[in-house]
Parts: sequence; structure tokens; C-alpha cells
Amino acid sequence: MSVLIKDCTILTQNERRQQLHGNIYVEDKEVVQISKKPIPIETDYKIDGRKKLVLPGLINTHTHIPMTLLRGYGDDMVLQKWLEEKIWPVESKLNNESVEIGTKLGLLEMIASGTTSFLDMYFFEEIIGKITEKIGTRGFLGFALIDSGTPEYSAEDLLPKCEQFVRRWKNKDLLQPVIAPHAIYTCGPETLQKSLEIANKHDIHLHIHCSETREEVYDVQNRYGLRPIGQLKKYGLLCKKMVLVHCGWITKNEILDIKKGGSKVSHNPVSNMKIATGGYAPIPELIEANVTVGLGTDGAASNNTLDMFDTMKFCALVHKQHRWDPIVLPAQTVVDFATIGGAKCLGVEKEIGSIEEGKKADIIMLDLKKPHLTPQHDLVSHLVYSARGSDVVTTIVSGKPLMLEGEFLTLNYDELLENAEKCAKELTS
Amino acid sequence: MSVLIKDCTILTQNERRQQLHGNIYVEDKEVVQISKKPIPIETDYKIDGRKKLVLPGLINTHTHIPMTLLRGYGDDMVLQKWLEEKIWPVESKLNNESVEIGTKLGLLEMIASGTTSFLDMYFFEEIIGKITEKIGTRGFLGFALIDSGTPEYSAEDLLPKCEQFVRRWKNKDLLQPVIAPHAIYTCGPETLQKSLEIANKHDIHLHIHCSETREEVYDVQNRYGLRPIGQLKKYGLLCKKMVLVHCGWITKNEILDIKKGGSKVSHNPVSNMKIATGGYAPIPELIEANVTVGLGTDGAASNNTLDMFDTMKFCALVHKQHRWDPIVLPAQTVVDFATIGGAKCLGVEKEIGSIEEGKKADIIMLDLKKPHLTPQHDLVSHLVYSARGSDVVTTIVSGKPLMLEGEFLTLNYDELLENAEKCAKELTS
Repeated sequence: MSVLIKDCTILTQNERRQQLHGNIYVEDKEVVQISKKPIPIETDYKIDGRKKLVLPGLINTHTHIPMTLLRGYGDDMVLQKWLEEKIWPVESKLNNESVEIGTKLGLLEMIASGTTSFLDMYFFEEIIGKITEKIGTRGFLGFALIDSGTPEYSAEDLLPKCEQFVRRWKNKDLLQPVIAPHAIYTCGPETLQKSLEIANKHDIHLHIHCSETREEVYDVQNRYGLRPIGQLKKYGLLCKKMVLVHCGWITKNEILDIKKGGSKVSHNPVSNMKIATGGYAPIPELIEANVTVGLGTDGAASNNTLDMFDTMKFCALVHKQHRWDPIVLPAQTVVDFATIGGAKCLGVEKEIGSIEEGKKADIIMLDLKKPHLTPQHDLVSHLVYSARGSDVVTTIVSGKPLMLEGEFLTLNYDELLENAEKCAKELTS
Repeated sequence: MSVLIKDCTILTQNERRQQLHGNIYVEDKEVVQISKKPIPIETDYKIDGRKKLVLPGLINTHTHIPMTLLRGYGDDMVLQKWLEEKIWPVESKLNNESVEIGTKLGLLEMIASGTTSFLDMYFFEEIIGKITEKIGTRGFLGFALIDSGTPEYSAEDLLPKCEQFVRRWKNKDLLQPVIAPHAIYTCGPETLQKSLEIANKHDIHLHIHCSETREEVYDVQNRYGLRPIGQLKKYGLLCKKMVLVHCGWITKNEILDIKKGGSKVSHNPVSNMKIATGGYAPIPELIEANVTVGLGTDGAASNNTLDMFDTMKFCALVHKQHRWDPIVLPAQTVVDFATIGGAKCLGVEKEIGSIEEGKKADIIMLDLKKPHLTPQHDLVSHLVYSARGSDVVTTIVSGKPLMLEGEFLTLNYDELLENAEKCAKELTS
């Protein structure tokens, strides 16, 4: 498949963070040529890039995609009550069909708002993988491990099922399996060790909730005599393949431990603020220590969207406010988190995260002809402080258009929204 | 002019916060009938309300509308440097033409994102009034007073010009003049007293920046021996007609003073966070004291949008995070701020802020058929946590459609965006 995007403004996110005006030629998954001059070639798709901004597809480094069905189902509640009264009862009713519909809804929302890659952590990850493969988004499929078992598998079945899952999803083109021990308070040392073993054996990533709430830190400390980061370090999981999510309650020494181990951090400001976990992930200190940071939305049940533009604005603003410092986390840094930073978190920065010749063509286009994007003094500023997911009109993954000028090519919009509504009602009735 | 909205879901925001499904008949500026049964009548406009959410137009209680031209012109900067190097030099170049274009751009953005009323504070307010009258939005025109003069008028001309302005704009249908002494540190006792005098004489509102930064509070205290609220109280400006904006650094006693005086508070969380003023307006305490609270975006130069949906989400989340309390400022409270609360701030709660028979028809419609608004467990939650300005498809002010299913009826979209771009470039070159 080949695509030509003509006469557009390109925010490359390359090493020099160049902005260009020109043309992009995509063939067979890759960006073949970026040129200021017209490229005289016949392609399957020709896209008019005038008044459009082209940038790398956004990378969401933490979500629970089927939970999109629970958007707005329980808000303004204390975490434990929310889980016990709202989330867990519904999760216990999930089955292949509802997970399929929830996944499709989440993918639709992500494609519509310019997210081309996501790191998931959930149950029924087999279904999530199949649907994602069919729809065409790039997915990192985190198979969740919990010592007490999941809605899908009993405690004793989990690890063997996990390894089978990893075997099946290895060496796929757009998809990668990830081992996702849920958290340090739900996974004992044995599960942590086994997770690392499988990750090393198959050379895949690890993903874990870590230091999200103060209570979690106390609980882990009481149980193991170590804080969550310490526990991970002890069992060797603070390694290069680890993507830690949240890190709202980490110390300066823990930042150094993360750095030494080479682990990455997924920052989820909207969910943290909405659940009111109290912690502020020390993003400026993490950057200073050269730790790689990506952004995540978390599940739509606690956000309540999968809109990475929304997450970028919250990220930039919450740290400014918290530090009384308008200079901290400038727009370019936040755009980096959502693009090349996310790619680095997942070890695919040579393939995606920027628009460069030879890299995979994960590309999105925003319509700049909007009141809230006028005038255009600074496009990087606009991405963080003014743009919305709805400004995205075209989303291309691995050279294949999934949304083209507002039309979805691999999903049935009307049918899906109707099914999702029906399925959500059934699950919560 | 008459409008019939058929078969829609209505978030009335009436006293009982009722949600209805039915039909709305608007004639000659007013909501004449709300009925569950079809209303058999011929009207100028018939709007299909299926899969649409109808709610009162949003009320933005603080902005500087021509500054929309400076969106993204200076970000990630310290306040004083931003003002001195970016904002003031451009403001000194403003003239009737640029203010006209900036105002139109701001109005376009507000109409597009469902804001039907705004409280402005700026210079060239005469032009802003004329343009707003022509475009058809409801406007509260704050004539800014600064002791050292404004880009429009010298210090000695200001007060006479202000009173002339008030005389001219009184008794208009959609517009009201407002006296807007800029702040306590820029307006001495004499200007404050004169402002109050004019406000009382003409029975109009007052609007002032108050306790936005800690530095301001110290400055005022050093100069006058009183904090900003104390200074306003001393000169009688803490009255029912006063809309205080920001209040990020107020004490418990000052909350009581505001309550006693009957003043209202405009909360601008996005701008406060972006400029990193450090203060958190004590909104939960203000509510507890029964002080009326409205929401504002502030100017697009420090937000960087005029999107009240964005402001609602930031409002709900920043206080949750700050207090470690997910229950504080639930969605319904925040929707109240943006609708009936704003109306109360401006003393027009009998006319606007809710959809009820006999009230003015300031009505907006959201398209619910969107991935990020699916499923629909809770529409009030969706307005605050999931919706974006771009979900608004129809905006009606005083019974007159200004945007109808995405089309602007009183503004030339293409031409305006082009002019705004050109004008902004000229101003900043």
C-alpha cells in the first residue's frame, strides 16, 4: 500500500525537532521520502495536506482498553468504593463478546483522536490482540497477572496461560506481548520472579502499576519491609524492559534506582487527578535524571477519555501549578513524551515516534482550520494547550490509513456505537 | 423568530436538575413550551434532536476577548516576562481593526464551543460591544480602568469615557455594560470609589482581578495595609454587583467577607494553572459559605482556548487532586458553575442559566454520537469529564441560532480565520 501526503506542515519530532513544509511518500509500511519538492509518483492514496499539521501518531503508554465500556459509570467516588461497588462487579461479568466490543470502542476512540500505539494491561488480552490485529492499530498487549486470579483465569492457570499467550503473540508485525504483573500489592515475589523469567526468556517488555497511592506504598512496606520500587529492585524487575505506571509516590533515591535499572515511567496525570491519589509523579526530576517518560490516559473509567491531547494539556499544567513554575514542562517536552518518549518506553524508538525516512509510517494529521487553532503563532504550543482529539482527521498506522479525512476504514462507526451502548447497558444492569 | 427542537434529551438545569426527553418550542427569544409530547407547530427552524443533548448555553464569567489573537504567542514563561516581552508590546499596537478581528475570532470560538454569554474585561470595549451585538452573542462588557491609562485612553480620559460607555450600552437587549477596575494594585482608592459610584448610579455590575498571585497580595498589603479583599471591603466594592475573578489567595475570613458583601467569584482554573500562580481558589469553602461561583476561561493568551468544557474538566480535577478527595466538586456542581452559577454571578438567573418555560432561549446542542461520549451511563459526567467544545453542533442565543448543525449563521468562517491569521502576524511582527 502506498500513500502520498502533499503540501503539508510536518512536525517531524526527529532528533533536531524540525518543522518542515513539504510532501511525504509512504510505501509498504515505511516513510520512503520526505521532500520539500513535489514527489511525482502514483500512490493508492493521495492526501491533500494543505492547512493540515502532520505529526507522528501518539503513543498511549497505559490503558485498560475494554474498560472504555465503563466510561462515566462511576465518578466522584473514593477509590475502594468505586472498585468494590462499580468496577469489580462489572468486570466479573465480562466475556469474550463484551471485551470485543469494549476493545473496538477504545480503538475507535484512539484512532479518532490520533493515537496509533497503545500499551494495554487487562484480562482477555487474547481477544484484545485479535481485535487490534483486525482493526490495524499498533498494540502492546499486557497480559495481567494477579495472584488471586483474574475474571478470565484461576490463580493456578494464569502463569501457564500467560506463557502460551506470549508464544502466540511474539513475532507479530504490529503487536507485541507484554507481561503485566498488576501491582506489587497484588503480586507476590514468586509472580514477580516468574514474570521476569518469561520476559527475559522471550525478550519482551514488563508493565506494572507502581506507587500509585500512598496507601499502596504503606501496604507494600508493611508486608515486605520495602517500598514498591525497592521490592521491584530486589527481584530484578527494575530493568530496561520495565514500564512503570504512575510513580506518584517515589523518592529521590527511587528515581536514581529507576535510572540505574533503565526502567521507563508512564505518567497518567488525568486519572491520578480524578481518582485523587494525591501523588504528583516527579516528572521534572525524572527528566533531570534522564529517565524516559511516556504519557498514558489510563482506562476511560478513570479519565474519562482516551484522548492524548487532553492528557498532554493536563500534564503540562498540573506540574506548573504544583511547582508554582510556568516554565516547567514546556510544550515541546510534553509533545516528546507523547511521541518519541512513548516509543522509547516500548523500545521501538528506531521504528516509530518520529516522522523520518526509513521509519514506520505511523502518522496523524490535524485540521488546523479551526477557531481554537487560530492564529498559528506556535504549532507545538497548539498541540499541547489548544488542540483536541477531534482535530485529528487522518490516522495512518504502518502505512495504512485507518481514518481518512474523518472516515473510518476498518471499523463500522454507527454499528459499533450502537453495540457498545447496548453492551454497556447489559453489563451494568 | 421561532425554533422547534424535536425529540431531544434535555438537561434542564432547573431547580430540580431534571433531565427530560421531549420537544422545545422557542418563539421570539423565549422558551415557550417544553413538552414530552410532539408540539404541532410551524416554526422558522426545525431541528432534529435525536442523539443530541440539549442544555443551557455556557456562561464564561471572565475573558479578554481580543486577546484570542495572542493564543500561543507566549507560553511557558514567567508572568512578568510574558507581560513585558510579549503581551504589553502587542497590546500597545492594538487598534479598532485588530480588536474587531480578535473579537470576532473569540466569538466564533465561543459559539463553536457552546458559550452563549461572556463577561469581558478589556480596552476598546466599544468595538467589542458593536461586534458582539452584530454577531448575536450575549455579552457583559467590562470597561477596563487602570490608573496609568490604557492602550486606548489616557489616565485623565478614562473615567469620563467609561461613564459615556455605560450610558451608551445600558438598556440594550443582549448586552450590558460592566465597570471593570483592572485590579487593586493598578487602581487606587479614588478609581475604586468612582467605579462604585458609576456602578450604583447606573445599577450595573463591577468586575475586578483579585488575589490572583501571592505577590499581588503582598504588594497591596504593603501599599495599603490591607489585603486585596480588605481594600475592596473598605471602599464598599465587596457588594452584590461585584464579580471577583481568581481569588487564588484568599483566607477563611475573606470568604466570610465575600459572603457578607454578596459578591460573586469567577474561577479560572486553566489560566491559574498555566501561569502557575500557585493559588488554589478555595472553591469547596466558597460553596460551603454559599458564595456564588462561576467559571471563566480567562483570555486565550493564558489558557489557550475559550473552551468551557475544558475548563469544567480542569475545575473538577484540580481540586480533587489538591485535596486528595475524589468526591469534592462532583460533575453536577461543576455543570452548575458553568450554567446557572454564571447566570447568578451576573444577576440574570431569572433570564438564563437553565432551560425553562418563560426564560430566554440560550440553548446549545451536543452531538452524542461520538466514540468519546459512548456509552452514556451518565450525561452530566460526560459533560465534565468526556465532552469537548467540538461536540457542540448548535448554539442558540435569545432564540436565534448562531450555529446550526455546524454552520455559522452570523459569521463568515473562512474569511474570518484568514483575517485573524493575517492580523495576528502583523501585530506580532
